[in-house]
Amino acid sequence: MTISVRRSTTAESGPIERFRHVRSLTDLLTERLSAEDQTPQSMTEASPAKWHRAHVTWFFEEFVLRRDPSYVVYDETYRYLFNSYYEAVGERHPRPERGLVTRPGIDDITDYRHHVDTAMAAALTAGSLDDDALDLVELGCNHEQQHQELLLMDIKHLFSTVPLTPGPVYVDRELDVGASPAPMTWRAVPGGISHVGATGTAFAYDNEGPQHRVFLEDFEIASRAVTNADWLAFMADDGYRRPELWLSDGWAHIGQTGWQAPGYWSRDAAGEWSAFSLSGRRPVVADEPVVHVSFYEADAYARWAAARLPTEFEWEAATSEVETERGELLDPARCHPRAAGTAMIGDVWEWTASAYLPYPGFVPANGAVGEYNGKFMCDQHVLRGASAITPRGHERATYRNFFPAASRWAFSGLRLAR
Amino acid sequence: MTISVRRSTTAESGPIERFRHVRSLTDLLTERLSAEDQTPQSMTEASPAKWHRAHVTWFFEEFVLRRDPSYVVYDETYRYLFNSYYEAVGERHPRPERGLVTRPGIDDITDYRHHVDTAMAAALTAGSLDDDALDLVELGCNHEQQHQELLLMDIKHLFSTVPLTPGPVYVDRELDVGASPAPMTWRAVPGGISHVGATGTAFAYDNEGPQHRVFLEDFEIASRAVTNADWLAFMADDGYRRPELWLSDGWAHIGQTGWQAPGYWSRDAAGEWSAFSLSGRRPVVADEPVVHVSFYEADAYARWAAARLPTEFEWEAATSEVETERGELLDPARCHPRAAGTAMIGDVWEWTASAYLPYPGFVPANGAVGEYNGKFMCDQHVLRGASAITPRGHERATYRNFFPAASRWAFSGLRLAR
Amino acid sequence: MTISVRRSTTAESGPIERFRHVRSLTDLLTERLSAEDQTPQSMTEASPAKWHRAHVTWFFEEFVLRRDPSYVVYDETYRYLFNSYYEAVGERHPRPERGLVTRPGIDDITDYRHHVDTAMAAALTAGSLDDDALDLVELGCNHEQQHQELLLMDIKHLFSTVPLTPGPVYVDRELDVGASPAPMTWRAVPGGISHVGATGTAFAYDNEGPQHRVFLEDFEIASRAVTNADWLAFMADDGYRRPELWLSDGWAHIGQTGWQAPGYWSRDAAGEWSAFSLSGRRPVVADEPVVHVSFYEADAYARWAAARLPTEFEWEAATSEVETERGELLDPARCHPRAAGTAMIGDVWEWTASAYLPYPGFVPANGAVGEYNGKFMCDQHVLRGASAITPRGHERATYRNFFPAASRWAFSGLRLAR
Amino acid sequence: MTISVRRSTTAESGPIERFRHVRSLTDLLTERLSAEDQTPQSMTEASPAKWHRAHVTWFFEEFVLRRDPSYVVYDETYRYLFNSYYEAVGERHPRPERGLVTRPGIDDITDYRHHVDTAMAAALTAGSLDDDALDLVELGCNHEQQHQELLLMDIKHLFSTVPLTPGPVYVDRELDVGASPAPMTWRAVPGGISHVGATGTAFAYDNEGPQHRVFLEDFEIASRAVTNADWLAFMADDGYRRPELWLSDGWAHIGQTGWQAPGYWSRDAAGEWSAFSLSGRRPVVADEPVVHVSFYEADAYARWAAARLPTEFEWEAATSEVETERGELLDPARCHPRAAGTAMIGDVWEWTASAYLPYPGFVPANGAVGEYNGKFMCDQHVLRGASAITPRGHERATYRNFFPAASRWAFSGLRLAR
Repeated sequence: MTISVRRSTTAESGPIERFRHVRSLTDLLTERLSAEDQTPQSMTEASPAKWHRAHVTWFFEEFVLRRDPSYVVYDETYRYLFNSYYEAVGERHPRPERGLVTRPGIDDITDYRHHVDTAMAAALTAGSLDDDALDLVELGCNHEQQHQELLLMDIKHLFSTVPLTPGPVYVDRELDVGASPAPMTWRAVPGGISHVGATGTAFAYDNEGPQHRVFLEDFEIASRAVTNADWLAFMADDGYRRPELWLSDGWAHIGQTGWQAPGYWSRDAAGEWSAFSLSGRRPVVADEPVVHVSFYEADAYARWAAARLPTEFEWEAATSEVETERGELLDPARCHPRAAGTAMIGDVWEWTASAYLPYPGFVPANGAVGEYNGKFMCDQHVLRGASAITPRGHERATYRNFFPAASRWAFSGLRLAR
Repeated sequence: MTISVRRSTTAESGPIERFRHVRSLTDLLTERLSAEDQTPQSMTEASPAKWHRAHVTWFFEEFVLRRDPSYVVYDETYRYLFNSYYEAVGERHPRPERGLVTRPGIDDITDYRHHVDTAMAAALTAGSLDDDALDLVELGCNHEQQHQELLLMDIKHLFSTVPLTPGPVYVDRELDVGASPAPMTWRAVPGGISHVGATGTAFAYDNEGPQHRVFLEDFEIASRAVTNADWLAFMADDGYRRPELWLSDGWAHIGQTGWQAPGYWSRDAAGEWSAFSLSGRRPVVADEPVVHVSFYEADAYARWAAARLPTEFEWEAATSEVETERGELLDPARCHPRAAGTAMIGDVWEWTASAYLPYPGFVPANGAVGEYNGKFMCDQHVLRGASAITPRGHERATYRNFFPAASRWAFSGLRLAR
Repeated sequence: MTISVRRSTTAESGPIERFRHVRSLTDLLTERLSAEDQTPQSMTEASPAKWHRAHVTWFFEEFVLRRDPSYVVYDETYRYLFNSYYEAVGERHPRPERGLVTRPGIDDITDYRHHVDTAMAAALTAGSLDDDALDLVELGCNHEQQHQELLLMDIKHLFSTVPLTPGPVYVDRELDVGASPAPMTWRAVPGGISHVGATGTAFAYDNEGPQHRVFLEDFEIASRAVTNADWLAFMADDGYRRPELWLSDGWAHIGQTGWQAPGYWSRDAAGEWSAFSLSGRRPVVADEPVVHVSFYEADAYARWAAARLPTEFEWEAATSEVETERGELLDPARCHPRAAGTAMIGDVWEWTASAYLPYPGFVPANGAVGEYNGKFMCDQHVLRGASAITPRGHERATYRNFFPAASRWAFSGLRLAR
Repeated sequence: MTISVRRSTTAESGPIERFRHVRSLTDLLTERLSAEDQTPQSMTEASPAKWHRAHVTWFFEEFVLRRDPSYVVYDETYRYLFNSYYEAVGERHPRPERGLVTRPGIDDITDYRHHVDTAMAAALTAGSLDDDALDLVELGCNHEQQHQELLLMDIKHLFSTVPLTPGPVYVDRELDVGASPAPMTWRAVPGGISHVGATGTAFAYDNEGPQHRVFLEDFEIASRAVTNADWLAFMADDGYRRPELWLSDGWAHIGQTGWQAPGYWSRDAAGEWSAFSLSGRRPVVADEPVVHVSFYEADAYARWAAARLPTEFEWEAATSEVETERGELLDPARCHPRAAGTAMIGDVWEWTASAYLPYPGFVPANGAVGEYNGKFMCDQHVLRGASAITPRGHERATYRNFFPAASRWAFSGLRLAR
């Protein structure tokens, strides 16, 4: 079996430390959620925290532990309940009903996690897993990291629906004292043949390969992400009311939704904007990168600014000089961007101009895990970088995140190009 | 102030015992539900158990305790969260989002209940409530009893969505050993001028009055409710596939839903029917009254049986001889009908041929509680009797229950007339 | 065969004259419509004029001519295309797609009408039809008269969607010079046992029988219908913005639709209200009866006026003194009410407080025509009287018209009771 | 003003001959449609023939004739009625209601066309139009050609909804006698830097430029389009029932729609497939290119065939050797593909793997015509080639057609690459 994932080979730890580290972060992130908090599903795209905790566990059980015929499955019904979208694995519980499954409860899920953790630890300690299985462990760890970010996105959305002020607080955090945002400058990147995509031995998802050549014209890219101050200027200039700035679908969408500001923003009686965060409703801080904007809005903003979004190829080419510089990544005591800096990775995911399509020569992995990425390559838009809720170690320059154009519950912002 | 409710004047207890008795039954019914069970909303018409517990509490706070300016409101936001449909009280949380409010949690609701119980007990003990307030206490007790039945309906619906077999069990109960159903006979009721509706000093809702005269022709009414055995015969005779048996709306509805049996029924691979109950999925017992049928189905069955549904006036007139005989009412250790007997009150609610309309001279109560009944008198259908989950003491011959024609999550059955 | 229709036995004409008279009125009403006008369907409830012309023709072919085995069917596909809702006749073209059937075109429909007219005239002249068939001819004539009114309702709706001012003109008509409306007075009607429903030899639909007894309390009924002037007072008093005036369903409905005036009304920049009519957009005339209000609006108005709607039994009992007095009925050169007078029949259909339910002892006709009325007896509301587009001779005191509560494309108004 | 369109400079004709030629083809295509045929709108994406005829006329009036202040506008309301999507021009009639506008009728539209034709001929003859205006005339001619194809697509869809067999016939055509399809072979195309997009003086839409460089790997492309015979093999191999072949969105879509064959196909009782065409329902001819498949289906077929769709860049690069060879283009006496040949342009539009995105350096035209293409660059998929209903002269190798992934009422097929 050849799958297009590669194990991370950090010197400091083996697979068992890696596995335990990832699993314990999930526990840390959810221990501050009550049983009630972990149960509902606030929109179809979101999932209950309880479900995330079980689904990532099922992934290890399904793809690693079941390879061993002697493994005792915890509960056969969980395969039905906690499969997300793997057609090859069989029937699944309908996604829109994930919030109705009150049993198993959160304590049952905790028991399930222990059961699988114990079996995984035994297998990893015994050294009984072959290379394919170890590849799948690594994939499972990355999968769980992805769901850690989704879990935080989903909790933020759920908490935002509670009609109280200041709203539920996931993490208690001091409000940042605003500094003036750094001035935005343009950095020139020369064109020509560029190599795009992942290669080598470090882990990458199948959709990041194969590495291949693209031809780029010369271009310039902004030194920092668009900030809340920038966005307020766009709003003040009637950005949400001028059809000539918008894609046709985007204009129709804001007509239907009535959007006139980024997600989670609202204006008080005095006209001041605040934003719901994982620390409750807070004033909008001018020098932070704007977050929770859709592709439609990012594209309209760029047009208003007489610029455009970079393609994902331009974006990746532009990282070469700044790749090692990280912005804010997941800090469980913060979960929020800091003032916009010069790093391209971290703070907020950045919408690109690129549709999410297979790279030339892309072949999905064999078996059910081949459904991980390829089958979603239609009508989605690539985001690059990482966000303030992306787990550290899960970010990289070749990473391709993707969402539909109207979606904005991810920590999504933008950076200009021209 | 004159409201059309009257306090129940049972000799054995005063208002405080009455209040405590009702409140403690709610606690008893919910103590077997986990925090997860109490949180979701499985369809728009249903509500979370947590919400029911808070809403009935809010009713006392809003309509009784707030009459006293010195009363300390528990939490002002609860007025917004737990108002159901009282326009006069102000804005409300949107009904379809009741399942997303994870905070306050179930322990907060328990505290809220204690707070209100303490204040109510103090007021009732002090004898400081005037007659209007005491009327509202009695209304609040009846309101909470109604919600006890709704809570059980909603939990049954929620648990039925869990895709496990036998499914969650609310109450552990032995399966009844089936006896042959009693033969159905016709009882003749003479026509003429009949008095319909509540009068006197016992409590009744405003929609049960005023008592008034109707003219009835002679008619006959069945000695018992339609049973599961009867219904299986209807199904076997293609009852769900013959348009001539159905109202036009009903035929369209089964076309859309694919209904081919009562609610919660399903057929296994061997062709045997089972039904989901509060004790999990169980075989269909032939001699129990059929339950969870819609008005459309009840009407079609009656046409198939060359009979009809009684009007609510006929139904009420027919109770005179059997009124004191009760069928199964709410037993927290059972929550399920027994074999169909001759009682007209208890076991299952019975659809009538009557639309839910005001009685001649009907005037809603003053103030917000006037919204209790009158504003729903449009496109709903009257059910009479009571069911195996109706709290004892809440049933009476003049009681008018009502649901839309397609609704079948209540414990709804039927009795024939001709 | 016993059907509950009875032939009209007007002295002046036999069935053939009757048939020709009805048929020619349809031709007269449609000759001023272009092929384009006759083709679309402006909402699911409406039908193309072309379809109405064919459907009423199909009724005679299906239920009368096909009884004769030697009859040559015009086109077998028309049975599929032009059956409205008769399940017993077989499959039908889906109602929402009636506006897409461009072929057969209007000239084909004219040919079809000639074919059937010729065959019907031959059969009626030859005297070869038995009594059952003659009953069905009479039913067919009444059916076509009903569709004449529907056709005008549907054309009015279609023309109202054309975004031109003053809009298409179906009939050129002088605007009435407004007089002051007659003062509204109350007329007392004594209660007791009343006989309701049709009897005797004149034609009536099955839903008008059997005649039966009802018990009525004393009541009063208004001397005239509610006028536009009355309605403007309701609007000026925030009638559309006060939830306490509305049924719960009605309040939700105006929330969804944004209704703030009767159907077809709009306000110009100067604040003046005009109404689209079959003569284009015209000023609202104060002393005409208000028209195109839904049951929800009629009910809310009555509550605002500290009155109520009469039941259909009260309404019928109240006609006894004024039955022979007719208001405006269908005049193809007018198609619009005159100033509100004292007649109860004509001008506008009047919503009653009654749900549309079977009379005691109601039995639908045998065969497919039994689907004419009975299967719609669910969640509809009775209107009594007749309107300015009801064909003369089709109106009577026992006539039961019915529509859903939200419907207002009929010429529907109201009269108060108390 | 610089717009990215260029006039066609065919030696044989000037702008006035060009204008007349295009306009007369529209008249020819619609003269066989009745008033009824030209009126309805069979789905939101389609438009009435009457509307197409008026809209293309409005385009010349709006963008060319109104530049001359002395031009007498035919009817100011037509700007509202017949603007399609130009926000800069002002308010528009809602698209879903185009089928309800019965007035103006088809004769009014004919008069409108004459009015504009006369004014255009006068301006073109007088030589009074500047270069910008002449560019817009050329754009208008291409625009009308696009709508000729849309008009035929829409009529086909409308006629397919008529529930008659063989259905309405737009063009009477002999059924082709099937020959065996040519064997499919692979043609190798070398990779490297390729120039893509339009340049030079011939007309092209703004979205075809600017010409730019892309880097391609070596690839192979099929010698002919996929045929009906090929597609039947895919169907026989359960192509529509195997999730592993489908994009996730595609699998969900066929789950919702129940698709199991290309658009307009149906199977008779004997299991034989036929397809509705502009000549009515006809047997499926094995060696014709498959048509009316969606992007989802094309993509699934390619995966089943162990191949893929070409990118639009590969497709364009592959035309260099075969560009001058045309397949079937619009013949008003045929309107249907012939057996699949080796031409890449003509017969059927071919789905590519490319999302519809701007070329590097793309700038929309100034003014309202800048809305022609750019604002639709989101979640659409590029088709290349042309079809048997594309007007001759409107096809070219750089032409970028586009539709959403689920769309299949265009004459859309596919060609494999690998």
